[in-house]
Amino acid sequence: MTSPITIDLFLIGIGTGNPDHVTVQAAKAIASADLILVPLKGEDKADLAGLRMTICQNCITNPATRIETFDLPNRNPATPAYLDRVNDWHDAIAAIWHERIARHLAAGGGPRIALLVWGDPSLYDSTLRIAARVEHRQPLRLTVIPGITAIQALCAAHAIPLNDLAAPVLITTARNLRTLGWPPDAKTLVVMLDSGGAFDAIDQTGVMIWWGAYLGLPEEILITGLLPDVSAQIITTRSEARARHGWIMDIYLLRRP
Amino acid sequence: MTSPITIDLFLIGIGTGNPDHVTVQAAKAIASADLILVPLKGEDKADLAGLRMTICQNCITNPATRIETFDLPNRNPATPAYLDRVNDWHDAIAAIWHERIARHLAAGGGPRIALLVWGDPSLYDSTLRIAARVEHRQPLRLTVIPGITAIQALCAAHAIPLNDLAAPVLITTARNLRTLGWPPDAKTLVVMLDSGGAFDAIDQTGVMIWWGAYLGLPEEILITGLLPDVSAQIITTRSEARARHGWIMDIYLLRRP
Repeated sequence: MTSPITIDLFLIGIGTGNPDHVTVQAAKAIASADLILVPLKGEDKADLAGLRMTICQNCITNPATRIETFDLPNRNPATPAYLDRVNDWHDAIAAIWHERIARHLAAGGGPRIALLVWGDPSLYDSTLRIAARVEHRQPLRLTVIPGITAIQALCAAHAIPLNDLAAPVLITTARNLRTLGWPPDAKTLVVMLDSGGAFDAIDQTGVMIWWGAYLGLPEEILITGLLPDVSAQIITTRSEARARHGWIMDIYLLRRP
Repeated sequence: MTSPITIDLFLIGIGTGNPDHVTVQAAKAIASADLILVPLKGEDKADLAGLRMTICQNCITNPATRIETFDLPNRNPATPAYLDRVNDWHDAIAAIWHERIARHLAAGGGPRIALLVWGDPSLYDSTLRIAARVEHRQPLRLTVIPGITAIQALCAAHAIPLNDLAAPVLITTARNLRTLGWPPDAKTLVVMLDSGGAFDAIDQTGVMIWWGAYLGLPEEILITGLLPDVSAQIITTRSEARARHGWIMDIYLLRRP
C-alpha cells in the first residue's frame, strides 16, 4: 500500500526536556505539521510523553494539526546479538510509522509529518535510521532540524567547556567503556547510554567526573568531583532517582589529568 | 576598580548563523539583559556582526537593553607557543569585558550582562575561559545557555547520524589531525577549526567526508563523497567562498570504512 504522495518528513530535535530548549526553527516546523507522531514508552515514561505534549501545545497554531501517539515496541531479548536486536527493533518501529502515515494520507491528511526527537536527531538516536527504512516504502523528502543535545545541556549546567584548549573529545557509550576500557589517546570522554556505573570498569585515579541527570528539567541533578570520591554517591543517587521517577536519563564527562 | 555589585553573566549559545537556531531559553535571556556585549572581528566579518544584531533585535523587548560593540584584539603572532598565544589573547579580551562592564555599572546600568556565542559556549569556544578571568576581578553568577553547535548543524544539513550504531565519535581539531594523524581507535572524526585541507595529511583510502560551510545561513555549501574524489573540490570551493565572503566557517565529518 505504498502511497504515490511524497511526504515531507521532519525529524525535529527538541532538546533535553526543558521546553525552552526548543529552537525557533523547531517551533516553526511543529507549527507547520499536518501530523505529529508521538511514541509512548510505557507508563514509566508518562511524564516524558506529557512533556512532549506540552512542547507540541506550545508550538501548534493550526487547529488542523493532528497529534497521534503510538506504543513503541520492545526490543526482543531473544535476539542474541546486540546490533541485530537493535536493527530488528528499528524495522518494527518503521513498520508502525509507515502504517500510521499511510492511514493518515488515505484519510485525506496533509503531507507534512513530524517526529519529535529528544536531544538531536544525529546523536545516539534511531530516528534517522528508522526514516531510511520508511523511505523504502513511502516517497519522502527528509528535513532534519537540530536540537540541543544532552552534551551541551551537561556542559551548560556545570558551566564547563567540553574540550580542553585545542584538545580532542571522545563521545562514546557505556558499553564501549566497559568492553574496551579508556581509549589510550583520549583525555576527555563523554559517556552516553550508561545504565549505571560503567565508570567502575576503568582506573579512576585522578579522573574528574561531571555527571548530570534530568538535564534541563526541574528535577535536574548534578554531581561533580574526583571520580574515586563521588562514584558511589552517583550510583546511589542515580538508583534512588530512577526508582522515584520510574525512569532516568543521565550522561557524564570524564577528564584525565 | 573592582565593583562590589555581583553581576549575572549570561553566556548564550545562539547556533551557527540561522537566526531560527535561537532557543526560547536564549531569546528569554537576551530579552532580560541590561547590557549585551558584541565583539567585532574587523570588517571581514561584518555580516556576522550584522547577524548577531538581527538576533538581538528579534529578541529584545525592553527598550532599556543596551548593546555595546567592542573590537576584538588580535592574537600576538610574536608569541611563539600556540597555547601561550591563546592564553594571552584571552587575558586581553577579559580586560576589555571587565572595563566595559565596570563602566556600565558605574553609569548606573543593571547587573544582567549577556554575551552571545556562535554555536555553543562549551565547544571550541573561549567565552567560558574569558569569563573565568573576569570572575577574578568582578563578583559574578554565571549562567550558560546551550546552543546548536556546528556539529548538529552539519549532521542536520546532510541528514546523517553523527555516530555509527553504538559506535564512538572523536571531535578534534585540524591542528591535531595534522600533527597526530588519524587516531587509531576512531572510525568517525569531526574536524573543527581547519584553515583548509588538513585532510590531505591522512591516508584518504575509503574515507567518506561530509563537509559544510556557512551552516544554517542562506550561503550554506555542502559537499559529500569519497574523500579522494572530492578533496580537491572542497579545497577550491572553500578558498573561492572565503574570497567572496571575506570569511568562512566550516566543519567536516570523516568516516573510515
